[in-house]
Amino acid sequence: MDTHAGSNQKVGFTPWCPLFITAMMEKLKVVMVVIEKIRKNGKDVPRRILHSIKVGLALTLISIFYYVKPLFHGLGSSSMWAVLTVVVVMEYTVGGTLSKGLNRAFATLLAGALGLGAHQLATLAGDKGEPILLSIFVFMLAAMATFSRFVPKIKARYDYGVTIFILTFSLVAVSSYRVEDLISLAHQRLSTIAIGVATCLGTSTFVFPVWAGEELHDLVALNLDNLACFFEGLGEDYFGKKMAGKNLEGKSFLHSHKSVLNSKATEDFLANFARWEPGHGRFSFRHPWKQYLKIGVTIRHCACSIEALNTFLSTAQMTDLAYATDPEFVEMVQDACGAMCLETGKALGELAYAIREMKWPSSARKHLAKAMDAAATVKSWVPTKGASWPEVLVFATTASLLS
Amino acid sequence: MDTHAGSNQKVGFTPWCPLFITAMMEKLKVVMVVIEKIRKNGKDVPRRILHSIKVGLALTLISIFYYVKPLFHGLGSSSMWAVLTVVVVMEYTVGGTLSKGLNRAFATLLAGALGLGAHQLATLAGDKGEPILLSIFVFMLAAMATFSRFVPKIKARYDYGVTIFILTFSLVAVSSYRVEDLISLAHQRLSTIAIGVATCLGTSTFVFPVWAGEELHDLVALNLDNLACFFEGLGEDYFGKKMAGKNLEGKSFLHSHKSVLNSKATEDFLANFARWEPGHGRFSFRHPWKQYLKIGVTIRHCACSIEALNTFLSTAQMTDLAYATDPEFVEMVQDACGAMCLETGKALGELAYAIREMKWPSSARKHLAKAMDAAATVKSWVPTKGASWPEVLVFATTASLLS
Repeated sequence: MDTHAGSNQKVGFTPWCPLFITAMMEKLKVVMVVIEKIRKNGKDVPRRILHSIKVGLALTLISIFYYVKPLFHGLGSSSMWAVLTVVVVMEYTVGGTLSKGLNRAFATLLAGALGLGAHQLATLAGDKGEPILLSIFVFMLAAMATFSRFVPKIKARYDYGVTIFILTFSLVAVSSYRVEDLISLAHQRLSTIAIGVATCLGTSTFVFPVWAGEELHDLVALNLDNLACFFEGLGEDYFGKKMAGKNLEGKSFLHSHKSVLNSKATEDFLANFARWEPGHGRFSFRHPWKQYLKIGVTIRHCACSIEALNTFLSTAQMTDLAYATDPEFVEMVQDACGAMCLETGKALGELAYAIREMKWPSSARKHLAKAMDAAATVKSWVPTKGASWPEVLVFATTASLLS
Repeated sequence: MDTHAGSNQKVGFTPWCPLFITAMMEKLKVVMVVIEKIRKNGKDVPRRILHSIKVGLALTLISIFYYVKPLFHGLGSSSMWAVLTVVVVMEYTVGGTLSKGLNRAFATLLAGALGLGAHQLATLAGDKGEPILLSIFVFMLAAMATFSRFVPKIKARYDYGVTIFILTFSLVAVSSYRVEDLISLAHQRLSTIAIGVATCLGTSTFVFPVWAGEELHDLVALNLDNLACFFEGLGEDYFGKKMAGKNLEGKSFLHSHKSVLNSKATEDFLANFARWEPGHGRFSFRHPWKQYLKIGVTIRHCACSIEALNTFLSTAQMTDLAYATDPEFVEMVQDACGAMCLETGKALGELAYAIREMKWPSSARKHLAKAMDAAATVKSWVPTKGASWPEVLVFATTASLLS
């Protein structure tokens, strides 16, 4: 992505601009990359500092409940649960906080009610039978709830809720043996948790919110940009005219797809949180987040091909296949491959831009058509020309991987 | 992996066995796959049930502290913290429980001490200044600790510890404003948490333990097996003699590498937990778990190439390049490619076996050498033979991706 903006302009200039302008452009490109990196980090670091401040703020707000006497006497010592809730529920994104907060609130409600029911049942068994019956209930419920966590869908969405469910049920059921006024205890716990969740949600939604949906949106666009960067880099530096040595070592574009390969976990995570978020900015409540995951799969598929192509290119360089037995033909294939790469890169860049701006990618189809044309051209040349085998193989493999 | 054992034997038989034996073998293979799947699930489900029972057991054990009077009076109502600890700390693997338990214990100790110190400092500020000073402390510490969670290494290993650190510090500092006997409260909390952690560790280590290290070991071997399965399947079903149509649709081996591609998160996770585990079975305490991650990277790299090769093969099938202009040559290349695939598959299978049994992979080198020989043969044929271009291209691309 880093070199994206620069490279697009340069393609048009290269044929006629004199050497010193090329050198200037090269320097400018390096500066652009550095600026882009600082901008990227500079965008992340303040947000992280802001998040840290938000957590501190929410905790300080909640501790006021404890310091102020009238509030304290209303809730008793269980206002500690509010502090606990804030620490555990507060997440980086709004969706994360919402997901955890709702999980916590509903799981507490459900488990509290079940716990009270278990207590009522157990008291029927008499003084001796009560702890035994309570133990059996706790054992059964904990075991069943734990087993349900192995179901992938529950694991992904309600894992935290199940933990809180087991926790609350055990606490209520076990403590019901000694605590007299169980209803008021349950009431206090519920209201403190509600206060804690409300504080978290307020802080995370209204103080510089970070939306999981927007993060996912940006991540998918960035991944597309990374692929575009690879193709443009390859088209320019490997198939381009000015590169004689074909030495790709140390080129940054060769690694631009690496981060894409391992992005699945983050995408799943963000999509899962985004589902909980209300409408915000350009995204409505039921924005089709699953579509981003589908795009993600396709992007990773492409990144895989790039990885294979990469390996192939570096192997081809090392074994140094006999080039240039027919320079004219080599140049033709090279030009076509270069065009393929550049046009594919442009099309991908266009798609990334379209996703980012939520517009119809009008010119991407044009670029793709050009890339397909170039691919067809390479394929049509192959059987007719009488060039030597190894060079055609190199290009043909590259071509088939690209197309 | 499923078809691994069966395919190894069949290769030798195919040339001479009559049709009905082949059909029988095919049926046997399907049965083997089904049995293997049941065995695999059958291995997982009882372990999951066992884990659920273990959680229930640990919770029941800890609730005894509450039911039995002498124990209850020793610890007071804070024995509830023991229940909470068990629910939160208990993980599927021993390493996970250890990691969470130690994180919880040390974070509580450290934050408790700091909280007491903050309380001592705040009391110096007088009755009015105390809550203000306490709020400032809580704010600062929570913000700093939250920011530290963005450091990838801390996130990976101590995320839970940092949460507990913020939690305990806030609880101790905030409640110090109203609770008189803070030392005894801290003492109670610490001992209940210690009891909770000890119960979890005891249950998870001594009752049918699941070791994260062993899971990682098995996962890496399984991933290698999956790759081996792909190569053997390709060698047999695509390059093999009996398959005339080259129709690969619906073949299970084509998808065997899919799970490998997304295994990074699980591997990182398991390696992180394995680091905490004591020596067990064939693994010592400081077993080089990082090496598994390196093998994992290489395996995923290979899976990526397979993915690209897969795409290429299905495209090649669809466009239906003009085959068989020189049947003899096609057969030669096909045989060589088949040999390459089969030998690579055998070598990978051998490596998986070697990892599983922790033995030196003595015959893998032999198989790999054969595969390299076959690859070299294909390469040496290419420039001399006068076959038509498309077919050579297909095989050459395949060959270069394989080698």
